[in-house]
Amino acid sequence: MGTAATRTISVELDRDECLSLVGTTEVGRVGFDDGEGPTVFPVNFALDGECVLFRTTLTGRLYQSLTAIPDAAIRIAFEVDWINQEQHIGWSVLLRGGAEAVSVEEGEKQEWPQPWPAGEREAYVRLRPTSVCGRRLKHA
Amino acid sequence: MGTAATRTISVELDRDECLSLVGTTEVGRVGFDDGEGPTVFPVNFALDGECVLFRTTLTGRLYQSLTAIPDAAIRIAFEVDWINQEQHIGWSVLLRGGAEAVSVEEGEKQEWPQPWPAGEREAYVRLRPTSVCGRRLKHA
Repeated sequence: MGTAATRTISVELDRDECLSLVGTTEVGRVGFDDGEGPTVFPVNFALDGECVLFRTTLTGRLYQSLTAIPDAAIRIAFEVDWINQEQHIGWSVLLRGGAEAVSVEEGEKQEWPQPWPAGEREAYVRLRPTSVCGRRLKHA
Repeated sequence: MGTAATRTISVELDRDECLSLVGTTEVGRVGFDDGEGPTVFPVNFALDGECVLFRTTLTGRLYQSLTAIPDAAIRIAFEVDWINQEQHIGWSVLLRGGAEAVSVEEGEKQEWPQPWPAGEREAYVRLRPTSVCGRRLKHA
């Protein structure tokens, strides 16, 4: 457990590596401020080029914030990772930028991810990242 | 992939279930605003009662924010999850509240988690959650 012998090193990933890793998984975590401070929740998503597509509820705070002002984009974070707790290795990628509400008509045209839980998720959200960074923890 | 037959249901977890699940894992994700908007990064942590203990760098933005004003606490989110992508099941827990910088002297007294990557992580941070919530996705 965390002795010098088992400690790993952290290396930065370039943008292409980051996006390639994001494409290997279906679930990430959205971070935003819901008016009561920072919040984080997992969602399944799809990648469309460099954009992250996901769905949420029309009544959720993210979508409410996005639609409060027409054509507004609010800053969110989207984090994806893979971690091996035994080996203390893994990687994480962080995409940051403006999220925007997408109309149902446009959302239905694309390969939008199907929500996992039963119940409607009629809010389509697209993150256009302006910043992509990541790092890998590996054995030296 | 997300057909009606494979869709799962979402159930809320009570506080005790949430804290019990948080105790089953060593890695969570910190969400906060670093001055350029929301950000999320993974950390290994330990639970001390209901408090989350983790370490970061003295030069990181979280610690810089925490120590900019003496005795300040800033709101952060801490998310833990377990997800099975094939089955579309899993759980997630979100703890929210004030984070505070802890002195090295106090940090060294407790069972503080050892940082995984090599290099110093001399900043000790404690989250005292004022809100604990979570949900489980399961087959109906």
